Amino acid sequence: MLADIKGLNEECGVFGIWGHPDAAQLTYYGLHSLQHRGQEGAGIVVTDGERLRIHKGSGLVNDVFSKGELEGLIGHGAIGHVRYSTAGGNELANVQPLLFRSQTSSLALAHNGNLVNANALKHQLESQGSIFQTTSDTEVLAHLIKRSGYFTLKEKVQNALTMLKGAYAFLVMTENEMMVALDPNGLRPLSLGMLGDAYVVASETCAFDVVGATYVRDVQPGELLIINEDGLTVDTFSTSVQRSMCSMEYIYFSRPDSNIEGINVHAARKSLGKKMYEEAPIEADVVTGVPDSSISAAIGYAEASGIPYEIGLIKNRYVGRTFIQPSQELRELGVKMKLSPVRGIVEGKRVVMVDDSIVRGTTSRRIVKMLRAAGATEVHVRITAPPIAHPCYYGIDTSERAELIASKHSVDEIREIIGADSLSFISVEGLMEGIGRSNAEPNCGQCLACFTGRYPTEIYPDTVLPYEKELV
Amino acid sequence: MLADIKGLNEECGVFGIWGHPDAAQLTYYGLHSLQHRGQEGAGIVVTDGERLRIHKGSGLVNDVFSKGELEGLIGHGAIGHVRYSTAGGNELANVQPLLFRSQTSSLALAHNGNLVNANALKHQLESQGSIFQTTSDTEVLAHLIKRSGYFTLKEKVQNALTMLKGAYAFLVMTENEMMVALDPNGLRPLSLGMLGDAYVVASETCAFDVVGATYVRDVQPGELLIINEDGLTVDTFSTSVQRSMCSMEYIYFSRPDSNIEGINVHAARKSLGKKMYEEAPIEADVVTGVPDSSISAAIGYAEASGIPYEIGLIKNRYVGRTFIQPSQELRELGVKMKLSPVRGIVEGKRVVMVDDSIVRGTTSRRIVKMLRAAGATEVHVRITAPPIAHPCYYGIDTSERAELIASKHSVDEIREIIGADSLSFISVEGLMEGIGRSNAEPNCGQCLACFTGRYPTEIYPDTVLPYEKELV
Amino acid sequence: MLADIKGLNEECGVFGIWGHPDAAQLTYYGLHSLQHRGQEGAGIVVTDGERLRIHKGSGLVNDVFSKGELEGLIGHGAIGHVRYSTAGGNELANVQPLLFRSQTSSLALAHNGNLVNANALKHQLESQGSIFQTTSDTEVLAHLIKRSGYFTLKEKVQNALTMLKGAYAFLVMTENEMMVALDPNGLRPLSLGMLGDAYVVASETCAFDVVGATYVRDVQPGELLIINEDGLTVDTFSTSVQRSMCSMEYIYFSRPDSNIEGINVHAARKSLGKKMYEEAPIEADVVTGVPDSSISAAIGYAEASGIPYEIGLIKNRYVGRTFIQPSQELRELGVKMKLSPVRGIVEGKRVVMVDDSIVRGTTSRRIVKMLRAAGATEVHVRITAPPIAHPCYYGIDTSERAELIASKHSVDEIREIIGADSLSFISVEGLMEGIGRSNAEPNCGQCLACFTGRYPTEIYPDTVLPYEKELV
Amino acid sequence: MLADIKGLNEECGVFGIWGHPDAAQLTYYGLHSLQHRGQEGAGIVVTDGERLRIHKGSGLVNDVFSKGELEGLIGHGAIGHVRYSTAGGNELANVQPLLFRSQTSSLALAHNGNLVNANALKHQLESQGSIFQTTSDTEVLAHLIKRSGYFTLKEKVQNALTMLKGAYAFLVMTENEMMVALDPNGLRPLSLGMLGDAYVVASETCAFDVVGATYVRDVQPGELLIINEDGLTVDTFSTSVQRSMCSMEYIYFSRPDSNIEGINVHAARKSLGKKMYEEAPIEADVVTGVPDSSISAAIGYAEASGIPYEIGLIKNRYVGRTFIQPSQELRELGVKMKLSPVRGIVEGKRVVMVDDSIVRGTTSRRIVKMLRAAGATEVHVRITAPPIAHPCYYGIDTSERAELIASKHSVDEIREIIGADSLSFISVEGLMEGIGRSNAEPNCGQCLACFTGRYPTEIYPDTVLPYEKELV
Repeated sequence: MLADIKGLNEECGVFGIWGHPDAAQLTYYGLHSLQHRGQEGAGIVVTDGERLRIHKGSGLVNDVFSKGELEGLIGHGAIGHVRYSTAGGNELANVQPLLFRSQTSSLALAHNGNLVNANALKHQLESQGSIFQTTSDTEVLAHLIKRSGYFTLKEKVQNALTMLKGAYAFLVMTENEMMVALDPNGLRPLSLGMLGDAYVVASETCAFDVVGATYVRDVQPGELLIINEDGLTVDTFSTSVQRSMCSMEYIYFSRPDSNIEGINVHAARKSLGKKMYEEAPIEADVVTGVPDSSISAAIGYAEASGIPYEIGLIKNRYVGRTFIQPSQELRELGVKMKLSPVRGIVEGKRVVMVDDSIVRGTTSRRIVKMLRAAGATEVHVRITAPPIAHPCYYGIDTSERAELIASKHSVDEIREIIGADSLSFISVEGLMEGIGRSNAEPNCGQCLACFTGRYPTEIYPDTVLPYEKELV
Repeated sequence: MLADIKGLNEECGVFGIWGHPDAAQLTYYGLHSLQHRGQEGAGIVVTDGERLRIHKGSGLVNDVFSKGELEGLIGHGAIGHVRYSTAGGNELANVQPLLFRSQTSSLALAHNGNLVNANALKHQLESQGSIFQTTSDTEVLAHLIKRSGYFTLKEKVQNALTMLKGAYAFLVMTENEMMVALDPNGLRPLSLGMLGDAYVVASETCAFDVVGATYVRDVQPGELLIINEDGLTVDTFSTSVQRSMCSMEYIYFSRPDSNIEGINVHAARKSLGKKMYEEAPIEADVVTGVPDSSISAAIGYAEASGIPYEIGLIKNRYVGRTFIQPSQELRELGVKMKLSPVRGIVEGKRVVMVDDSIVRGTTSRRIVKMLRAAGATEVHVRITAPPIAHPCYYGIDTSERAELIASKHSVDEIREIIGADSLSFISVEGLMEGIGRSNAEPNCGQCLACFTGRYPTEIYPDTVLPYEKELV
Repeated sequence: MLADIKGLNEECGVFGIWGHPDAAQLTYYGLHSLQHRGQEGAGIVVTDGERLRIHKGSGLVNDVFSKGELEGLIGHGAIGHVRYSTAGGNELANVQPLLFRSQTSSLALAHNGNLVNANALKHQLESQGSIFQTTSDTEVLAHLIKRSGYFTLKEKVQNALTMLKGAYAFLVMTENEMMVALDPNGLRPLSLGMLGDAYVVASETCAFDVVGATYVRDVQPGELLIINEDGLTVDTFSTSVQRSMCSMEYIYFSRPDSNIEGINVHAARKSLGKKMYEEAPIEADVVTGVPDSSISAAIGYAEASGIPYEIGLIKNRYVGRTFIQPSQELRELGVKMKLSPVRGIVEGKRVVMVDDSIVRGTTSRRIVKMLRAAGATEVHVRITAPPIAHPCYYGIDTSERAELIASKHSVDEIREIIGADSLSFISVEGLMEGIGRSNAEPNCGQCLACFTGRYPTEIYPDTVLPYEKELV
Repeated sequence: MLADIKGLNEECGVFGIWGHPDAAQLTYYGLHSLQHRGQEGAGIVVTDGERLRIHKGSGLVNDVFSKGELEGLIGHGAIGHVRYSTAGGNELANVQPLLFRSQTSSLALAHNGNLVNANALKHQLESQGSIFQTTSDTEVLAHLIKRSGYFTLKEKVQNALTMLKGAYAFLVMTENEMMVALDPNGLRPLSLGMLGDAYVVASETCAFDVVGATYVRDVQPGELLIINEDGLTVDTFSTSVQRSMCSMEYIYFSRPDSNIEGINVHAARKSLGKKMYEEAPIEADVVTGVPDSSISAAIGYAEASGIPYEIGLIKNRYVGRTFIQPSQELRELGVKMKLSPVRGIVEGKRVVMVDDSIVRGTTSRRIVKMLRAAGATEVHVRITAPPIAHPCYYGIDTSERAELIASKHSVDEIREIIGADSLSFISVEGLMEGIGRSNAEPNCGQCLACFTGRYPTEIYPDTVLPYEKELV
């Protein structure tokens, strides 16, 4: 919901389980815990060894599944997906998992990330007579697998994956096995766990806690895991790997109770807050965070500074998708939903407002204005991400370059625009140190492309931003 | 939502506005901000001076109103209501405001609270030929007004109010005026504000912030406000008044950004957390609160103790009313929704878990168990309310006496039952001091009935608990 | 559906059963067979001897009841209602049966017809302090019963009924009995049947066929039947009775498979068609009826004349309430729904078009035009009702007097307006003879008010037309 | 709806229009008039010359389209489809038109009929790497077109069509043209009309009457019509043609107001009724037809015999898809929905019951039993189709051979089973004469396969019955 305020949206979350009689139900709970990664659609494909069954739909996990539908998804293996999408229309076809049936066998795919060479591959496949069912980049993989000259599914999948460029955490399922693949840069998080004898994979470890599974390890870049009745086989499809984990997963997207590469997200954010204070201390009366994602960082800033942390901003939990927006006139009269300042807290106070990122700047300006209207005497903004000046091609809807305030304005100009008394962004170094990662070490790197413009993969001339895919 | 976990439910919230062309829309936003006080139904009645229009329905404010319906509610005066109810069925009739039409004029009522002599009054009215439309205690007031021998509406309302016993904040509206009444004990909060020239009343001041109104003052016990084209007239219907504000409003129900009698709720809770530490200090590694209502108290406890505050428990925001509950079997396997412990935070730690109340004890036991399963080495529970040992007859669904764990067990027994290493409840004195109120002063008292069993009004033999009303 | 074309709408149908374990389900099937009498709302109240349960809603019987809801209606006695209403809005409250609960007992009412003194009675009751829940005239009876000084329910009902004027077939039900009353003029049909030991009452006998019940007799004007554990008791509440059965029931409203006072409706209509030919013969090539209600009369006309009956007009069965009307432009281009002429039948032919009534004349004009456009060389219209020149106050929505084409125009003018080559209406005498009834005999009379303006009851100054009730 | 009673279901209806600014809306009205051919799903694809837009869904045309959706379908060319299907599940993908998008152009398909070699073709295409989106036989054509080595779309389509065997009326649409094809046996009806300058095609001519179009001619077997901005071009894709129009179209499926090959369906049925009397006269009191499809034949039988035609059976119009079926117990008690006998007509009478076909015999038995229970002294059944002893592979859901009563029983045995006093089926010769067609003339033949077992095309070993397709 706040995603909507910020203009920063995750593309997806995936969950898979193999070897449990309640596979679909556990996937349902797993998807619930990944709901923050995508609220536009959800789906589950399940296998009982004989056939794949699917249920998917638009909306939240809660909206898509009823008890009866869930009970109808019988089987011991399941993959699920929650999806974010900017497009409207009845593009149910694009909701994942995608399921491809043939007379001999079926194939289900769930994908988190964004391929940068999907258009080129699609063009080539169509000229060979393939018909695409969706406008999703994900479908390219199915056609590559189907047309591969290799004999076994594993080889077909390995062969197909080598043609893909970009960010992807893929779950592939047939009647009798599940495969798990992560791109050679490991741009998206993907973890492996166990629930008794069953194998579980998920975009975030919070899903393991919810279903009662134990974390085993993170899936590594370039790995292909094959899970079937013989258990787990670890293979690779690429050896030229270099971990470049998306930094925004730590800063903003992932749930505070998830661990990424062994690091707790809440702890990482709190640490970023402390780092932020080191880099940009200020004298003030209260520290407040923009709910929900900046609370941890704000507490860190408060702890480091000794300034008390208070609830200076409050989010209305009940603003759903059917909410009726106030007219422009009412907005000007001060009607505000989603986020309200707490007058009793900020009135007459010098406020440090900790937030995790600035995309277009409009939200920050609105919040600063609100705080002042509620009586704050000073508003000092501290952002625990560096300025976002470059679009993301790997699955985050950051808007086009032209809309990114930091692509055109200096920090001081931004401060002016948002109306803050002071404004600081964390430095790239501070970010890396705060999280405790280093791009100098091969398995420990972060993708910083949206801050630095240095993309870890090639970017093709016809690469589309994730939120433009629907229009292709 | 957490209400559901706790077994402590508020009955209602009311909002009214007079003298604004967008009365219904402002009421819609006001009700949104009061949504936490009742999620079972919502309604708005509006007047344009000629006739009353109504729209109401079951569910959340978002579910009940569409844009078209809201635009159809034309007028300058409006009253709205959000409702909590335990009963199922299609008892739409009980959703408020109640609207009574006659050939000559109409009457709309919105009520927060619970009358303790409703049954006796209803019996008497029916024996005189009255037909009731609802099973709501609220309707009694309409019949008393209708049958009153007095001549003006003000006198009729005053006369009718004197017959009522119990807790009530009433909004009454006809085609051309709005009246506002608070019971002689002032058991429920009710505040008056202004939005330009328009008068606004609301159960909580957070509604004023949302619609951009300015707080004026709290409505006083025994007051009757009459608002019409001549502006605001302040009258009373009772002089034997004694403020007994519900303590649970501070502790649990109200939003942290609301002020009750000038006291910010977040600040009061933080203060209770500090008081709690004074009364029951402990050595530990982290302090965590049970979201959402106990976060402020936990931060207070952390500040007072110097132990860092962390997010040790996280609430799943997407668990809605259509959520499919895990089977018993899956629950035992560890599937948990709504609330998860954050392993990365609590593992290997001594945890202080601050919560605001214990009703039946089952939730506390579950949370303690979760924390231990996630690796907490010690769990110390601190409750910022005294033990709840007596049912509430004034509009809070506390369950029957027999279900209240504190009515049958000592603190140490409860500690044993919930499995905590230590357990402390705040004292009644600590509570009063923490909030900064005193029953010794006439306008400054609190209702402590659920802790002490001393009810501020008579309780009749056929008084029903609020959640039993539906069955009458 | 065609009702909509014609501008002639029935107000209601009622069904009741006592003494059967599946009372609600049988009522559901009974209401299905009465669906043509009202499509705006439906409801069932059931008693198990202890309490009344209700389910009702807007729309068709199919839309209102689901399997689960029906199964929840447990009991051996039930009354049901289908309702026609012109008003929009969420006036669910007006859907019948009406159910009035009190602390001591409950009362359910289902009513077919329209009271002509409802407004006067309501005014008087409100001035005594009664609060009405609905804008329905039916509710007046509940208040009269409730306020009656008599001791037994039977006496209260008898006393209350004597105050009512107008048309009514009433079903009254409490926890332990059902009462059935028909107004002293017997304006609406109401029949009594048996299903094993259970008593059944219904607006039309077709409901008996559907549930497998046997017809016993028609309820007589002024009768009050009391059905309870002692069986059936026949009483009266008025002795000044004179049967004046609504003629339009024979001509248009009732289903062809119903019998009214022992006369089959299809047979009566066929007989009217024959009579019509006697009164207005014509030379032609084909006879066609306007579906569905005029088919029987058309077959009668064909049989009498020897001209072959053909399907010259066809109704689109799938035009439902969500149907999107063609734009004016498309209508002019010839797009037609609901009713189409069959070119293969009428092209080059002289057509006799038999219809049952003309209200505003617009439909007839449209059909005549269609037939000509499809190639009919002559169109001769034969109407098996006399001209409708007066509004109905007894439950039929005939529109106001000013809209009735026959109130302002001669037959020849109407012929001109609708564009027919010839036009004849059946005479009042022909109608009575065709049906086989006579107003000279006391128990055999018909209401002819809409043709003659002679109303069988007083009409009060504030009598409202049935379709205006909602606005009061 | 009655389809359901009979166990005889049509697969589809198609409608297309080219060159009209309101193409989608006219298609909507056209589909309405074809609704009897398929009630499970409906869809429209429209082109504005630039891109194709689609809307489709499960259920009736009314349910699928709202005003807004229809208005969003902007363009001058449109094809639409109504679909019958036996399968449940969310197989929205199978609802037609099917739309295939690629980076360079798009292709929409609507199909009435059933291909007998779809499985073999699909197998071959999948082994070449094609991925199918649906389980529909229709999709095969898209892949054949896409993979065709020819250069122009016309050649690709012609080439693809030559590979298909079975029954098909195809509408194909791209951004800038529409093509219309009928299989070499012309098994399904398909007519061409004009609406001003716009070209219209439809499965039945009743659609022309509804949209105000003029009939031009029937599409001929083996024809390929190409309609684009240059107007209409007539081409062929096969010269080995032999008209074998489905006889059941005349007997049962088509609307009485449609003409097939210039013959009005109502007239053909009436003529079959007369022929039936010639072949099997009987002495009786009344002739009645099973509504709706047998009414015309019954009137013919009555006219020929001089026995009066009466409404002896009545259909409940309001039994929709959400109707709650009576329990077995209630059914035995005589509760009957859908169809009721009219006691007032049949009691004490010798009844001729004319019906159009017997599939499994259960419905006939039920109706005969009903008529007797309503007092008929004799029931003589006359069926205006020969015995159906062979399954249909061309798009009619006739059930498997084993379920067809006439495949196992003689006429006299069937008479015994259904409990009739006499039973006659029309002869094959009588059928041909009654309709006025002859298989001796090349362009005038009928498919009689379900009566005779002589299929006009090859039947492949893996040919599936239309209602089994979903399971492949």
